[in-house]
Amino acid sequence: MGDNSANTLLNNVVVPDDIRDFTDDQLKQLAEEVRAEMIDAVSHTGGHLGAGLGVVELTVAIHAVFNTPDDRLIWDVGHQCYPHKILTGRRDRIRTLRQGGGLSGFTKRSESEYDPFGAAHSSTSISAGLGMAVARDQLGKDNHVICVIGDGSMTAGMAYEAMNNAGDAKSRLIVILNDNDMSIAPPVGALSKHLTRLVSSKRYMQARETGKKVTEILPPPLRHAVKRAEESARTAMGTGSLFEEMGFYYIGPVDGHNLDQLLPIMRNLRDGAHEGPVLIHAITKKGKGYAPAESSADKMHGVVKFDVVTGAQHKSKPSAPAYTKVFAQSLIEEARHDSRIVAITGAMPSGTGLDLFEREFPDRMFDVGIAEQHAVTFAAGMATEGLKPFCAIYSTFLQRAYDQVVHDVCIQNLPVRFAMDRAGLVGADGSTHAGAFDVAYMGCLPNMVLMAAGDEVELMHMVATMAAYDAGPIGLRYPRGEGMGIDLPARGFVLEIGKGRVVREGNDVAILSYGTRLGEALKAADALAERGISATVADARFAKPLDTALITQLANHHSKLITIEEGSIGGFGSYTLEYMNDAGLLDGRCRVKTMHLPDLFQDQDTPDKQYDEAGLNAKQIIHAIEALK
Amino acid sequence: MGDNSANTLLNNVVVPDDIRDFTDDQLKQLAEEVRAEMIDAVSHTGGHLGAGLGVVELTVAIHAVFNTPDDRLIWDVGHQCYPHKILTGRRDRIRTLRQGGGLSGFTKRSESEYDPFGAAHSSTSISAGLGMAVARDQLGKDNHVICVIGDGSMTAGMAYEAMNNAGDAKSRLIVILNDNDMSIAPPVGALSKHLTRLVSSKRYMQARETGKKVTEILPPPLRHAVKRAEESARTAMGTGSLFEEMGFYYIGPVDGHNLDQLLPIMRNLRDGAHEGPVLIHAITKKGKGYAPAESSADKMHGVVKFDVVTGAQHKSKPSAPAYTKVFAQSLIEEARHDSRIVAITGAMPSGTGLDLFEREFPDRMFDVGIAEQHAVTFAAGMATEGLKPFCAIYSTFLQRAYDQVVHDVCIQNLPVRFAMDRAGLVGADGSTHAGAFDVAYMGCLPNMVLMAAGDEVELMHMVATMAAYDAGPIGLRYPRGEGMGIDLPARGFVLEIGKGRVVREGNDVAILSYGTRLGEALKAADALAERGISATVADARFAKPLDTALITQLANHHSKLITIEEGSIGGFGSYTLEYMNDAGLLDGRCRVKTMHLPDLFQDQDTPDKQYDEAGLNAKQIIHAIEALK
Repeated sequence: MGDNSANTLLNNVVVPDDIRDFTDDQLKQLAEEVRAEMIDAVSHTGGHLGAGLGVVELTVAIHAVFNTPDDRLIWDVGHQCYPHKILTGRRDRIRTLRQGGGLSGFTKRSESEYDPFGAAHSSTSISAGLGMAVARDQLGKDNHVICVIGDGSMTAGMAYEAMNNAGDAKSRLIVILNDNDMSIAPPVGALSKHLTRLVSSKRYMQARETGKKVTEILPPPLRHAVKRAEESARTAMGTGSLFEEMGFYYIGPVDGHNLDQLLPIMRNLRDGAHEGPVLIHAITKKGKGYAPAESSADKMHGVVKFDVVTGAQHKSKPSAPAYTKVFAQSLIEEARHDSRIVAITGAMPSGTGLDLFEREFPDRMFDVGIAEQHAVTFAAGMATEGLKPFCAIYSTFLQRAYDQVVHDVCIQNLPVRFAMDRAGLVGADGSTHAGAFDVAYMGCLPNMVLMAAGDEVELMHMVATMAAYDAGPIGLRYPRGEGMGIDLPARGFVLEIGKGRVVREGNDVAILSYGTRLGEALKAADALAERGISATVADARFAKPLDTALITQLANHHSKLITIEEGSIGGFGSYTLEYMNDAGLLDGRCRVKTMHLPDLFQDQDTPDKQYDEAGLNAKQIIHAIEALK
Repeated sequence: MGDNSANTLLNNVVVPDDIRDFTDDQLKQLAEEVRAEMIDAVSHTGGHLGAGLGVVELTVAIHAVFNTPDDRLIWDVGHQCYPHKILTGRRDRIRTLRQGGGLSGFTKRSESEYDPFGAAHSSTSISAGLGMAVARDQLGKDNHVICVIGDGSMTAGMAYEAMNNAGDAKSRLIVILNDNDMSIAPPVGALSKHLTRLVSSKRYMQARETGKKVTEILPPPLRHAVKRAEESARTAMGTGSLFEEMGFYYIGPVDGHNLDQLLPIMRNLRDGAHEGPVLIHAITKKGKGYAPAESSADKMHGVVKFDVVTGAQHKSKPSAPAYTKVFAQSLIEEARHDSRIVAITGAMPSGTGLDLFEREFPDRMFDVGIAEQHAVTFAAGMATEGLKPFCAIYSTFLQRAYDQVVHDVCIQNLPVRFAMDRAGLVGADGSTHAGAFDVAYMGCLPNMVLMAAGDEVELMHMVATMAAYDAGPIGLRYPRGEGMGIDLPARGFVLEIGKGRVVREGNDVAILSYGTRLGEALKAADALAERGISATVADARFAKPLDTALITQLANHHSKLITIEEGSIGGFGSYTLEYMNDAGLLDGRCRVKTMHLPDLFQDQDTPDKQYDEAGLNAKQIIHAIEALK
């Protein structure tokens, strides 16, 4: 733990109840101490820095005013919850953030009663909060429900669906729009411009401020009349916001770092100032209060360990380029040869590497916001006109667009290219970001072609293959992190659809890998060779269509066959078994074992440890081969 | 074909080009002829009636003014496209609608160049249209793109995501909001109220009308100035709509049945009156122009064959209650015993049977609009507070909420109950509505329990089981259509989780069914008995957890084992194979065949013919057993 001598208030705080008697001035001091504590903690652990710094005052105000955990507080996405964790009984473990066995980097129900709803994907908070508010009403309770959601998260359709429902319902619900004009990347879309207009409307802001102050000093019985008058004045001014049109009582914009503004508003709402859904529009600064974060382009959104004084991050020199970067560079190379190639991201230009693509082809990159559903069907529309859209979406986020993949792409057999980054286990981000299911949920779809890269050179070939393949939908999965460090060609070549390759010839047993477990398969083969067992290692390349000739050959010439993949049951291994069963290859001559992710959600750890827990490393391959009788 | 003698104009129309020289008066007459033709056709075929009647004038106006198919016309959902099909080369087949081998009841790319984007699920049109518009700009073309979307479809998050993107983009795009204040059921949510406010704002309407007329009579160079003035006036009036806030140029409300209003607006837009995204707010009446439809509660949304004069539908008396109804009645019975049970639908109260539930428990039924994503996380929020939410969503529509099932329900292990109606093949609705993938996409998720009903009594037991099971998420699938007609108990009983049952004891071969192919399995067993083969028939009940003891027993005591399900590869059969392989049961003593849906999207037909095509009827079970060597 860092130097705590200055944390004269925070050192006496374990849970929010400890701060409810604090004066406003003490709360201001507490906020500064929480901020310093958070910066120090993240400097040791790495993690999400900018977002948490932006909500320090909001966090303090909410916990000081509302009766958490009985009042429910839901953090959308959850990556801004470190100050919240510091104030809710977890300060003693805050330096274990995102480490194996430590605190999650997101909110998590199993971790604390102060986390009533876990998150990590965006835009779920209003739906969950409305569910809690309706349940409260059903069960005759009277607690508050508060959702804090960023302006980026508001661009997702799910948030709109929830607003549309909540604005029509009568349930008391407080939504705090944490408007930092920035999610991970600068925001896009019409909503962002709308928010800017709201904020820049000075006249409105002043009128509201006045109104609020009047409301505060009046005794309760008179408040309603004043509010009605204020409401009329507001309508007459013609400054209705989108949120009012959606049925919310809109308060704001307010300075989200000014406790003198936040505390009275929250106290009013706590004391029943409004019965229906309310939206507080709070303006915050991502990275607030830490100069290196405020001045960096991404507001130090996600960081590794860093020096608190300088903000310099201790980035270890990568031993090989990351898969994401190889993907981006390959796509750029293909796009140089084919003007019909365009790229689409859902608010993840840097996460997907498409920021590099955009630098070279600014008119051919489309960031549609946090809007995976729209992204996929937008791409489908492009494909009908002859463009070659590459949708680069993390495996876990493509779940958001599943129906669009089925209904708009596969049924119509449109050549949309899916680049599924972060496939497999993802380390510190934990179960919410793992790309565990895409082989199963994509592989069951007719017309779909599915590939997984065995290494970064394979990734290049597969990007070239996707660029060339125009007969229907095609998907490619590749993992988070660095490649194997092998030499990269100038450009990938086009693979034959549905054909795998033998990487290492052997005689006794065979390992058929789908994806980047290929490296572990080769390691296992080395170790087996030392034990006198000769192993063939093959790279399936395709989960769909299966390379049935390769499988048949492996089955016919080896006594044991292992399939291995970084995905759940119901994927590559299951398809292989189904084929072998249909083809009469499961007759006992070649014993088979399918190795896939276990049927559980794995907590954060290093990827290597996660794969060890999952049983998908070389030693477990060896063990599986030995155990096959 | 009906009596065409009165169709003096329509009889000379094959494609839209044939109507482009028509006078406005002729177009009005044509609209009436199209309406009569459509009523007559649907009276013979059944299908979607009310929606198509509501867009007859819109259809005529669009095809008369715009240069389809070069100008792209996208019908959201697509069930309102019958007038469009009549005018686009398909009138000669309009009486084959929704029949096997006939026209699809929705738009379909493979059917006509006038269907640039197929649909059937809602809210996809703006995304697809924006993709086409952007592609047009990229490719240097100058066609128009027109999307027609209903007010119900606008409640889905996907439409909002597309609006947010389109409103910010510069691409020329025309969105026609077909506001009939009704999708399948009366609309819900804040958006609906917003639209009502817009429509009731008479002052606004008149101002716009005036503005439009002035615009029309002015020569082009002056129009822009007038428009700017008009815009200022509009802003000053403070009547900005949500669509304007989203960046669209808003025109309306206009009478969607009045060609004198529609034609000039469309001609203006065709001739380049506005460069960016435009939204025309057209007020229509579902069922317009056909008295029986206008006066019916659901506006004759979906009908069977009917008498044109009286509107009376030729409903055949069902031989057994539908699964949907048994589900609803079972849930009502359980809810009488447990006040914590609540029900959630995404705009499908009658389709899911929850309208019956609402009649008895009006405060415990929640229709959240076309908003499956929100529905699931809303339910998850309720579950955290101790309610017992039943989410009744068609299998195909639950694809819209896949990420919410994974991220908000399964990772948190929350007891949300998924009632997946229309699982399996669905007959006339075709591939877009088939529930083919839910076993695969739900079964790969940790914490999930999955059941399929073998018949309607089993469905009752499974609803009771879901009501009692509070340990985590649980899903139940059941098909479209009528049950087996067996006697129903007063209430279902609670099943043991993960335990199947033997329905018929035999000695030679075993058929293990998951879901309602159980009836075909029993038929097959009867036929096999006649051939001297004694078949055991078992009902798996659960795909997850698997009843491994049952599978082991079947494998150990029979020479052949068939699994059968109404779902894709990667589901129950694959899990059974995986288990048997791991357990060493695939050693040749018991030969196995997994029967599942084929790897293709099946067109509409009767369900029985579809299952025949899929190879999942009794005769194919028999064939599979005989073929197993």
